[in-house]
Amino acid sequence: MTVRLDLEYDGSAFFGWARQHGTRTVQGELERALAVLAREPVRLTVAGRTDRGVHASGQVASYEGPLVSAHALNALLPPDLGVRACSAAPDGFDARYDAVARSYRYVVMHRRERSVFERGRALWWPHPLDHALLRQCAALILGRHDFTAFTPTQTVHRHFHRAITVSRWTEDGDRLWFEIEADAFLRHMNRVLVGTMLEVAQHRRSVASFAELLGGATREHAGPTAPAHGLYLSGVRYEADG
Amino acid sequence: MTVRLDLEYDGSAFFGWARQHGTRTVQGELERALAVLAREPVRLTVAGRTDRGVHASGQVASYEGPLVSAHALNALLPPDLGVRACSAAPDGFDARYDAVARSYRYVVMHRRERSVFERGRALWWPHPLDHALLRQCAALILGRHDFTAFTPTQTVHRHFHRAITVSRWTEDGDRLWFEIEADAFLRHMNRVLVGTMLEVAQHRRSVASFAELLGGATREHAGPTAPAHGLYLSGVRYEADG
Repeated sequence: MTVRLDLEYDGSAFFGWARQHGTRTVQGELERALAVLAREPVRLTVAGRTDRGVHASGQVASYEGPLVSAHALNALLPPDLGVRACSAAPDGFDARYDAVARSYRYVVMHRRERSVFERGRALWWPHPLDHALLRQCAALILGRHDFTAFTPTQTVHRHFHRAITVSRWTEDGDRLWFEIEADAFLRHMNRVLVGTMLEVAQHRRSVASFAELLGGATREHAGPTAPAHGLYLSGVRYEADG
Repeated sequence: MTVRLDLEYDGSAFFGWARQHGTRTVQGELERALAVLAREPVRLTVAGRTDRGVHASGQVASYEGPLVSAHALNALLPPDLGVRACSAAPDGFDARYDAVARSYRYVVMHRRERSVFERGRALWWPHPLDHALLRQCAALILGRHDFTAFTPTQTVHRHFHRAITVSRWTEDGDRLWFEIEADAFLRHMNRVLVGTMLEVAQHRRSVASFAELLGGATREHAGPTAPAHGLYLSGVRYEADG
């Protein structure tokens, strides 16, 4: 049977998604718990391999094996990792290859003093921010661009164009967040996009210079990589979702 | 000088507000850090003494002593305790005696599986809930009532009537919360109110029986005390706030 898992995790104490001997990873914890319930080894495929420290509120994974109960699985998982649902998927469903789009969210707490409840869950930003400039940058990101400038030079990627279908900043009190949806992402891409937009919003870089980066500049021309703890994999879209 | 502190804390790892030798308390941590900056012992007065495990997003405290910088104070405080602001208050301002109303919020995650991001910050409720009944109970709480049934029999209180100025349930997706404002509260009152309303919302107690409790029944007639980790002191109102 093909099984789909809808997952969430607080990335703070994980060395990212991918199983790695001797470290605590999301895949490692999940496969360990699934093997107990399935009574056989389980190998997971995932929609978005998240880096160390990145959170997920809407991750999707799949495996071939027996269907397990979400409740039983949660009882075997640590508190910073949980399943929203375990469900029978169409034969051969693959969480990675069948995904048509992934969504990420980057959360910023814009206030003078640090936030107790958002610690480790949002970037604390005590400096001035020009929200109008953030919105201008987000609008420029929409569409198909060359994102070479937004991923490390040492790379496993071969193609650097991506098609962005959602790109927007939203504010609610002292909390603001950037949402982005694309067919796929380059490594660190969202964090470098946010780091560079924050430079623009501080008037340390022009919107025109940001626009130029989207035409295929090299990494050293873009801004810093924003910290992992503000980033969430927030959703995955499949053909069948419409 | 009289100083006002606007505070927030995650109550999970504190034995409540009140200083107590040999335990980690909010007052203890704050007075220790303030003494470093003030170079003299500081004694705090607080608007709402919270119990072990209860959170605060809008607590207010005051002291007589030198004004300190919020930023410097935050640097000396642990990550689960922070100040939003330190400010000079009118001479003789007292966070406790000058407060005209306190607000609390109780947060419930109503879903089948536990929530990773709300762990320790909301009550997880996987059972059915009749939201209309919650709203009926909240409406009954408004006004002046005898809350004897909602506080332990062994009590330090002498008067059991309280005037409730806000009482409402709000839903947003699978998250719902109860907000209540009053001149003052009895010990455990909000947690027993929530525990009892949840009985009504499960059809295990009638709205009429809930209404009767507000006329001064004894503790054994009310429902269970809901866990501390769903409760937040969310705000304090002072005369000058209008």
